[in-house]
Amino acid sequence: MARDRTAALIVIGNEILSGKVVDTNSSFLAGELRGLGVSLRRIVVIPDEIDVIADTVREVHPEYEVVFTSGGVGPTHDDVTILGIARGLGREVIRHPSLESKLREYFGNHVNPARLKMAEVVEGTELTFEGSLFPTMRVENIYVLPGIPELFREKFTSMRQRFAADPFHLRAIYTCEPESAIAVFLNRTMESFPELMLGSYPKLNDPEYRVRITLESKSRDYVEQAFAALLDMLGPGAVVRTE
Amino acid sequence: MARDRTAALIVIGNEILSGKVVDTNSSFLAGELRGLGVSLRRIVVIPDEIDVIADTVREVHPEYEVVFTSGGVGPTHDDVTILGIARGLGREVIRHPSLESKLREYFGNHVNPARLKMAEVVEGTELTFEGSLFPTMRVENIYVLPGIPELFREKFTSMRQRFAADPFHLRAIYTCEPESAIAVFLNRTMESFPELMLGSYPKLNDPEYRVRITLESKSRDYVEQAFAALLDMLGPGAVVRTE
Repeated sequence: MARDRTAALIVIGNEILSGKVVDTNSSFLAGELRGLGVSLRRIVVIPDEIDVIADTVREVHPEYEVVFTSGGVGPTHDDVTILGIARGLGREVIRHPSLESKLREYFGNHVNPARLKMAEVVEGTELTFEGSLFPTMRVENIYVLPGIPELFREKFTSMRQRFAADPFHLRAIYTCEPESAIAVFLNRTMESFPELMLGSYPKLNDPEYRVRITLESKSRDYVEQAFAALLDMLGPGAVVRTE
Repeated sequence: MARDRTAALIVIGNEILSGKVVDTNSSFLAGELRGLGVSLRRIVVIPDEIDVIADTVREVHPEYEVVFTSGGVGPTHDDVTILGIARGLGREVIRHPSLESKLREYFGNHVNPARLKMAEVVEGTELTFEGSLFPTMRVENIYVLPGIPELFREKFTSMRQRFAADPFHLRAIYTCEPESAIAVFLNRTMESFPELMLGSYPKLNDPEYRVRITLESKSRDYVEQAFAALLDMLGPGAVVRTE
């Protein structure tokens, strides 16, 4: 059996729910995890509220092997992710000694309570410094990432290899037929290959094709067999190109 | 009291979780709802799986005044949103007579089971035809929208006025100070104006400013008073511009 891993992402941010900022961390993480062979099973975007974060953590963290959070880890009043995760896990928030001394060294005479807030972690947090001045926090299966896209990417990238599972194998067929005409072939494919991940994505107003069909599996043979069978059913006249 | 409304969005789509397609419906809807004075409180992205959709519907629909779904309503095997909502609400799926006759008329001799699948609705669904050939489905407080961005936008736009609540009033301050230097002023603002929605959004590598501060309320007076108080604390040297 190919090794799979499941993941979820909790995005914490009023700015996204209120339409002020477009969330780009979700699509970045989705693509990265897929490339690593990890199944992202849920993305949830919630407000900067301790109880909502706690409820979401309680609900999500036992269900998935890895959970990522995005946002809410800065020095201001609306940065309540650490408090929310702590409440969700039933743990305390503590000031981490080595983080505190790093911050005191960095800020010198300009240290203040807001700056020292960035030394607060959930009890039991492991800090990693892979390739970065500031640490990434992990507590249980939860990786706490900053919401600023540049930092989110930098921190994820620095530790991406630790999440690697067996890869997905992907084929795609672009067809000029409408979805409702090929549905019967997709259904037959699913009957013959019940474990296949088969997607059908219509595109409006594209001069090249009408539907992109994707076939995926962790077994290369399985996806190649399904791909050949579906191509055969569709017939060459219906297929614009394949990938 | 200003009238508020809460909303949630359920995005159904393996293509988004697997990083094949970037979800643009969420940010579109977030912006639209904000403009209408509606508080979007949750976005959740889940796979095309009946039980997951059912669980999410059961969890979300009693909690928010309006729930939108995006995706999973076409003619193919992976379009299981109607089945999932039905299971979540404990209702049957029925073939809607007027939809069936519309589809039979539209497709003529080319009607097939996949095409007639598009006549299936959750029992008790209200159909609206505002400005569109195909209907929008509403069952209880759930509006079922297609995932294709052009159609999602068209359908939402055709009925957007029915969601209007009292507007949010928004002011913004752009500052050249780092977030950790102004946190104290943000905290004081929240102490004086506990009902204020106050956001603080650092931007990296922007030559113009370092933090955008947003102040919002459904009361114009309240937000203006908070805005004046915060400007006064920051001092003119720290403020790049305001909106």
